[in-house]
Amino acid sequence: MDRRLLKKFDQMITQKGYSNRSEAIRDLIRGQLVDATWKEEKREVVGTITLVYDHEVRELTDRLIDIQHQFYNRITSSLHVHLDEHNCLEVLIVRGKGRDVKYIAEKLIGIKGVKHGKLLTTTTGREIF
Amino acid sequence: MDRRLLKKFDQMITQKGYSNRSEAIRDLIRGQLVDATWKEEKREVVGTITLVYDHEVRELTDRLIDIQHQFYNRITSSLHVHLDEHNCLEVLIVRGKGRDVKYIAEKLIGIKGVKHGKLLTTTTGREIF
Amino acid sequence: MDRRLLKKFDQMITQKGYSNRSEAIRDLIRGQLVDATWKEEKREVVGTITLVYDHEVRELTDRLIDIQHQFYNRITSSLHVHLDEHNCLEVLIVRGKGRDVKYIAEKLIGIKGVKHGKLLTTTTGREIF
Amino acid sequence: MDRRLLKKFDQMITQKGYSNRSEAIRDLIRGQLVDATWKEEKREVVGTITLVYDHEVRELTDRLIDIQHQFYNRITSSLHVHLDEHNCLEVLIVRGKGRDVKYIAEKLIGIKGVKHGKLLTTTTGREIF
Repeated sequence: MDRRLLKKFDQMITQKGYSNRSEAIRDLIRGQLVDATWKEEKREVVGTITLVYDHEVRELTDRLIDIQHQFYNRITSSLHVHLDEHNCLEVLIVRGKGRDVKYIAEKLIGIKGVKHGKLLTTTTGREIF
Repeated sequence: MDRRLLKKFDQMITQKGYSNRSEAIRDLIRGQLVDATWKEEKREVVGTITLVYDHEVRELTDRLIDIQHQFYNRITSSLHVHLDEHNCLEVLIVRGKGRDVKYIAEKLIGIKGVKHGKLLTTTTGREIF
Repeated sequence: MDRRLLKKFDQMITQKGYSNRSEAIRDLIRGQLVDATWKEEKREVVGTITLVYDHEVRELTDRLIDIQHQFYNRITSSLHVHLDEHNCLEVLIVRGKGRDVKYIAEKLIGIKGVKHGKLLTTTTGREIF
Repeated sequence: MDRRLLKKFDQMITQKGYSNRSEAIRDLIRGQLVDATWKEEKREVVGTITLVYDHEVRELTDRLIDIQHQFYNRITSSLHVHLDEHNCLEVLIVRGKGRDVKYIAEKLIGIKGVKHGKLLTTTTGREIF
């Protein structure tokens, strides 16, 4: 491998708190495996959807709850935190086929009044050792 | 703007469930604003850290709890879900300066036995309208 | 009904924010129904277990996690909040037969180092209208 | 102490999984201490409010969210679980003076459409050793 590339990699892993190269490489490989399961049609994956919104926007909370109940058997649970008088943060844990989890995320993030929404793609942990 | 670029953009936003271009552009701008606050030294941001791990790995849960308590005034709350007999998913909501939130995330994700960990960067909602 | 009893009841329901007697009586009846389902052998119930503990007590968190995983298919999810540097609050949502939910609650509350633990008995909502 | 009373007590603590009398007595004393802090005007306490409701009842979720935001600085966080297509369970962690926490609980439990609601009274953990 190129020496300059290795040097840059070593700088990055020190900054990230890894104690050695093999740990950092193992985590890179795991990340790739997780990404791969999201592309397979039939594999079960897990995603966490984070939403920030103003609860005072008309009908917003109603639509959020409705979509959540439409997919209630995919949404394991959700955590709600009041950031201030107006802003809420909600995290939903969603389990299912990658395509379905993405669909639910897009539905929720697309609701009018959601200020910021993102899907984080992760795993059931079964394929990773 | 280039016509082929616009066409590709329109395909993407239809797929994502947007009803029109301006909504999609608004969300792109918001995303940029959130990313910008994470780069400012003094701004308060919010992050959600998702961890998947095997609770049976020796001393893993002890170390997770210890780090969480070390930064207890930043970690608003956390949600724990049992994925199966071995695998857990934990989501932590962390609030503070961007650098601090990233530091906590790296500490947690770097714990030996964590199979997959990621930080999702979001906002307190105050700068976004 | 005895007039003095009714008067006392009316005072109580005003204090609790009910707008009329029939609402208060409906809630009393529902409470009875929930209690009854907890006594039936085969009915599914829901309980929330609240634990307050000092995370620094040796092996406490390990034992908590172990018991939770032993019954992972009953424990829907749990929420953890850091009360201060030492004290944690954890709420677990548990679903199953009344006897099993009580057994899990007693196991968790009985762990050495748990400062305060209680089971709140509620319902899946199916029998109540 | 009366021998029959002691015998009954011993039967109960065995059933509850205690290994000896002193542990059971310690927990009884702690329970008393927690109850006492809820009666003191100025002490900070913690409560968990559990609500079961049908999300399809008109305006119910709007009112739930509104009350939660009115008291957002008391409500640390909340956990939402979908029990089935219709029924939700929500647990809120509330921190403040006993009177205030009770007031919030009664407001929430009294909302039309809430099938079952209860307050569990616990502690910040500071007064208990």
